[in-house]
Amino acid sequence: MKNVAVFGAGRIGRIHATNLAALPGVRLRSVCDPMAAQAAELASQLGAEVSTPEAVLADPSIDVVAIASPTDTHSELITRAAAAGKHIFCEKPVDLSVPRAQACAQAVRAAGVACMIGFQRRFDPTFNEAQQRLARGEIGAPEMLVVTSRDPGAPPAQYLRGSGGIFRDMLIHDFDIFRWILCSDGDEAATLYATGSVLVDPAIAEVPDIDSSVVTIRTRKGRLAQINTSRRAAYGYDQRFEVLGSTGMLQCGNHRPTEVVQSDAQGVRADKPEHFFLQRYREAYRLELAHFFECLQSGRAFRTTIEDGVAAQQLADAAAQSLASGQVVVL
Amino acid sequence: MKNVAVFGAGRIGRIHATNLAALPGVRLRSVCDPMAAQAAELASQLGAEVSTPEAVLADPSIDVVAIASPTDTHSELITRAAAAGKHIFCEKPVDLSVPRAQACAQAVRAAGVACMIGFQRRFDPTFNEAQQRLARGEIGAPEMLVVTSRDPGAPPAQYLRGSGGIFRDMLIHDFDIFRWILCSDGDEAATLYATGSVLVDPAIAEVPDIDSSVVTIRTRKGRLAQINTSRRAAYGYDQRFEVLGSTGMLQCGNHRPTEVVQSDAQGVRADKPEHFFLQRYREAYRLELAHFFECLQSGRAFRTTIEDGVAAQQLADAAAQSLASGQVVVL
Amino acid sequence: MKNVAVFGAGRIGRIHATNLAALPGVRLRSVCDPMAAQAAELASQLGAEVSTPEAVLADPSIDVVAIASPTDTHSELITRAAAAGKHIFCEKPVDLSVPRAQACAQAVRAAGVACMIGFQRRFDPTFNEAQQRLARGEIGAPEMLVVTSRDPGAPPAQYLRGSGGIFRDMLIHDFDIFRWILCSDGDEAATLYATGSVLVDPAIAEVPDIDSSVVTIRTRKGRLAQINTSRRAAYGYDQRFEVLGSTGMLQCGNHRPTEVVQSDAQGVRADKPEHFFLQRYREAYRLELAHFFECLQSGRAFRTTIEDGVAAQQLADAAAQSLASGQVVVL
Amino acid sequence: MKNVAVFGAGRIGRIHATNLAALPGVRLRSVCDPMAAQAAELASQLGAEVSTPEAVLADPSIDVVAIASPTDTHSELITRAAAAGKHIFCEKPVDLSVPRAQACAQAVRAAGVACMIGFQRRFDPTFNEAQQRLARGEIGAPEMLVVTSRDPGAPPAQYLRGSGGIFRDMLIHDFDIFRWILCSDGDEAATLYATGSVLVDPAIAEVPDIDSSVVTIRTRKGRLAQINTSRRAAYGYDQRFEVLGSTGMLQCGNHRPTEVVQSDAQGVRADKPEHFFLQRYREAYRLELAHFFECLQSGRAFRTTIEDGVAAQQLADAAAQSLASGQVVVL
Repeated sequence: MKNVAVFGAGRIGRIHATNLAALPGVRLRSVCDPMAAQAAELASQLGAEVSTPEAVLADPSIDVVAIASPTDTHSELITRAAAAGKHIFCEKPVDLSVPRAQACAQAVRAAGVACMIGFQRRFDPTFNEAQQRLARGEIGAPEMLVVTSRDPGAPPAQYLRGSGGIFRDMLIHDFDIFRWILCSDGDEAATLYATGSVLVDPAIAEVPDIDSSVVTIRTRKGRLAQINTSRRAAYGYDQRFEVLGSTGMLQCGNHRPTEVVQSDAQGVRADKPEHFFLQRYREAYRLELAHFFECLQSGRAFRTTIEDGVAAQQLADAAAQSLASGQVVVL
Repeated sequence: MKNVAVFGAGRIGRIHATNLAALPGVRLRSVCDPMAAQAAELASQLGAEVSTPEAVLADPSIDVVAIASPTDTHSELITRAAAAGKHIFCEKPVDLSVPRAQACAQAVRAAGVACMIGFQRRFDPTFNEAQQRLARGEIGAPEMLVVTSRDPGAPPAQYLRGSGGIFRDMLIHDFDIFRWILCSDGDEAATLYATGSVLVDPAIAEVPDIDSSVVTIRTRKGRLAQINTSRRAAYGYDQRFEVLGSTGMLQCGNHRPTEVVQSDAQGVRADKPEHFFLQRYREAYRLELAHFFECLQSGRAFRTTIEDGVAAQQLADAAAQSLASGQVVVL
Repeated sequence: MKNVAVFGAGRIGRIHATNLAALPGVRLRSVCDPMAAQAAELASQLGAEVSTPEAVLADPSIDVVAIASPTDTHSELITRAAAAGKHIFCEKPVDLSVPRAQACAQAVRAAGVACMIGFQRRFDPTFNEAQQRLARGEIGAPEMLVVTSRDPGAPPAQYLRGSGGIFRDMLIHDFDIFRWILCSDGDEAATLYATGSVLVDPAIAEVPDIDSSVVTIRTRKGRLAQINTSRRAAYGYDQRFEVLGSTGMLQCGNHRPTEVVQSDAQGVRADKPEHFFLQRYREAYRLELAHFFECLQSGRAFRTTIEDGVAAQQLADAAAQSLASGQVVVL
Repeated sequence: MKNVAVFGAGRIGRIHATNLAALPGVRLRSVCDPMAAQAAELASQLGAEVSTPEAVLADPSIDVVAIASPTDTHSELITRAAAAGKHIFCEKPVDLSVPRAQACAQAVRAAGVACMIGFQRRFDPTFNEAQQRLARGEIGAPEMLVVTSRDPGAPPAQYLRGSGGIFRDMLIHDFDIFRWILCSDGDEAATLYATGSVLVDPAIAEVPDIDSSVVTIRTRKGRLAQINTSRRAAYGYDQRFEVLGSTGMLQCGNHRPTEVVQSDAQGVRADKPEHFFLQRYREAYRLELAHFFECLQSGRAFRTTIEDGVAAQQLADAAAQSLASGQVVVL
């Protein structure tokens, strides 16, 4: 039985805490959040106690901390948890600053604790099945990747101010998909070009940030990736990728709430995609935590390491640099 | 907080017990099964105790019994539970004999307890969405229903000996779908014709039973329904229906494990349907129990009453009679 | 070079004449129609001359007649053309009366001329591909067939008065599909049950006729077929069938004008099916005439013989009898 | 009646000649090709005569020339035909050299003849429907375009030597799609970045050319386009695009030979896309010529002018320059 504390009782903290509470072999012991009422409500629902990071890290009976607090607290919590000998599950990103993220990775290695970063998309049943088929050679050698990643609607400009920009906040997941799909054999990005626009909400220009972006990556082996993202898709959360291989193609389609198809004078209409990430990745969030504890138990490597977290940040940094300069970045 | 006992710790009992244990406002108190080891294992996993129907029915703190024991025990357990003043959730069918099923319904009414029959398909997200759109008039007046219901593979002939035959064992769900979709306004079956064959496994002929069947129902208002079923679909569990209305059509497609589409020299290939009922109706099983407790709480009517259970049995009986006689049955 | 005369310059006559005029190795020589203006216009467009059946049948240079005149003229024209030694392509049906149709078949055999009946659906690229895969054993042995056949809208009751009823006018094609798909190894219908309703247009009841029908056929080998038809599908011409075999299923979907999919706040919308038979079967009409002349040239057997025409009529008769009696018909 | 001569009796010349011969109001008079046997065969099949460009251009009864000869003859034939007062339909490209293409456009304007360039994709029923819906505002303002354009297999390196490179030979169509979809309101490309690789056939590297490419274009209004192309898709000719707008998305899917779906133990399998451009764009080739003559008749503007031809060439040039330099090109 592993004893776990969750840092953060907000939207994503509640998901992880609820999944933790239902995992066999796991006991959710503590919930920590400066918002006391929120922490108390979540703890009470799940039969856990309210605590503080200090108390959790000092408690030798806690084996694991799950970090789901605001981004700017991640690196400090990782470092402290590593120092306290706790195993760590941490929501992406490690940190908006690559050097600080690298320092975290170093601290984790030095402490010898396990640390997994929550790139939940790698646990999505559809994406994971595609990756496994690719790994089994079902479409031959990978050549080209097209990632489409669009939110149903833009967040308030206020939220974006602290987000680190679209590449660090939103495309971080897509950069991880790129590495997972095209770089599993040690290949890496060689050049990156990013551009974008404000097409959705003029207030985003004043952040300053962009709301629509396209990124092109070429790897050392010459593989090609294109990512297109928007903060707004009027038809819902659009999460797809397709990979072309030498003997075929794998496409990952959106998930739909139901399989009803309605035919009438207007046409033949299927459901919109699942509304947003809480719906689309509900199963992925559950599976990534199950994977975390299976790996802790078996000693197998995590599917998404802290090094993966750092590498995705580096691509986000390169994209931001390319956007700013208007030039291709050589990595 | 409702206290619940589950009768039956087999495949379907485990599903219901697990769902009950996770429902807010519900406490799974007892698990009963003559197979002691099975009962003990399930109870232990879910933090419940092992008990017996006698003890459960005598315990005034138990509010609800969930009956998931073998079919031939249903009617006695319903009758006893009703007499003990317990609310009842019972897996389909009420009983293989229509008169006994009617007696159960009478006992339930006399006792004034609530009783819901587990036609879980009405809680399938796809089927339910279709029914709601139909009810909202999105395709006008219903005219014609086509139900396709095929298992991935035939059970052993041995199992079929006690099943009551394909119409009572398998099509009971499809008859309920027919009533739910075409008869919600009080319309009812007027004539029924059923025929079938042994095409899958010759051993089934010796049961005797059939493994492939087609049923036609015409309602009093002239609506038309066709049901086709097979004990074997090499591509998995095939669960679809489509309803034609005066201004459109609603089709319910199969659910797939993933949304991966693979294109190669052989074609463009999507997943097979979910393997079998435990996968396809996983969410439906969860939702039907949630609905049961919501109705208990709110006093609203169940979506699937014991009268629905009896009515589906009557159609199954008519189908068996039509098959035996080779004639159309007038209801 | 084969010289051809077309009888009938109406909707279907124009299709055949146009296709004939474009076939290599074929010369459209004459167009005959009592509506002189219509015949003249069509002949002029295609570089043919206006003629009469008498002149055509007396002209030794005419090799082939294509009969696309009203149904009640078919049997006389077939008989006279056969007597004149002309090869015959005739639109379905041979005749609304089975005995007269049989007499035509006898006349054709006696004269030793070739005669093909225009069941164009067997030449539809989708249906034909499915039939070929079935014949190659790609889904094992055929077990069950479900045919969906719905027109976009009901014709005027006036038209229906001379139509012979829904089974002879509309389902004749579906009966032919049944025989083509389930009876290619010499199997034949053993029992047939048909019922139906007037749900679309009350005026159809006064013809008298029905506008919605369902038919069940069981073959001697125990194979099962269900056909469902309606005179009205608000979403367009719905022409599908699916066949279940011992190792798989083949489904024939509708054809769409374009492959545009529009996603917006209302859902994900594809095109309606092709509007009606002139659109859906445009290619089939072309291919069936090409097949006719290839067979004439090569001596190979037609895919749709006059005997197929008679057999489909017999099923239509049985369906009409079943509807009238409310009973199952044993064939 | 318009009298037409075709220059070129190769693969694409045969398509255009055959379509011309079937167009009402058009008479195919002459076929010209230095390969005399090829010209004679085509002319004979279609009832035309063999001629020479000199004779055709000197013949006052010829109204229109259709240029389907090798690329390096286009500019001279356009210039001479314009000087002779003939209206011109010319296969893409105008010329591999942008200045020569511009000179052609100038010659056409000076002569006052009509000249349409054969970007047949704009006449594809699917692509055209999408463009019309976009123009009608059905998805709001266009924001982002993703074009996927993949051949079924790479041509021999020998062919590629005279092709002008992948951007001028293959992506020229995709650049035209970009302009058609994102620039219909006068917007134009502002920056372009192209990169690519040899992943399919090492012999292509020695041409030198690439076989896999990705292009990013940002317009003056900030709209974003991504194009991905490969000389090889193992599953057939992959021709899709999707455009994201402020209120929705339009996706253009591949066309399939049939609508058969086969379900078996391996999955649920639909057809591969139409094999290659002769199949996929068969209807488009027919419609573009019909459009040409309708415009000649009505005086309406062509959908694809010689200026469109020049503009697409300019984008191809920019892409080649970007690939060579590894830099973003500012237009």
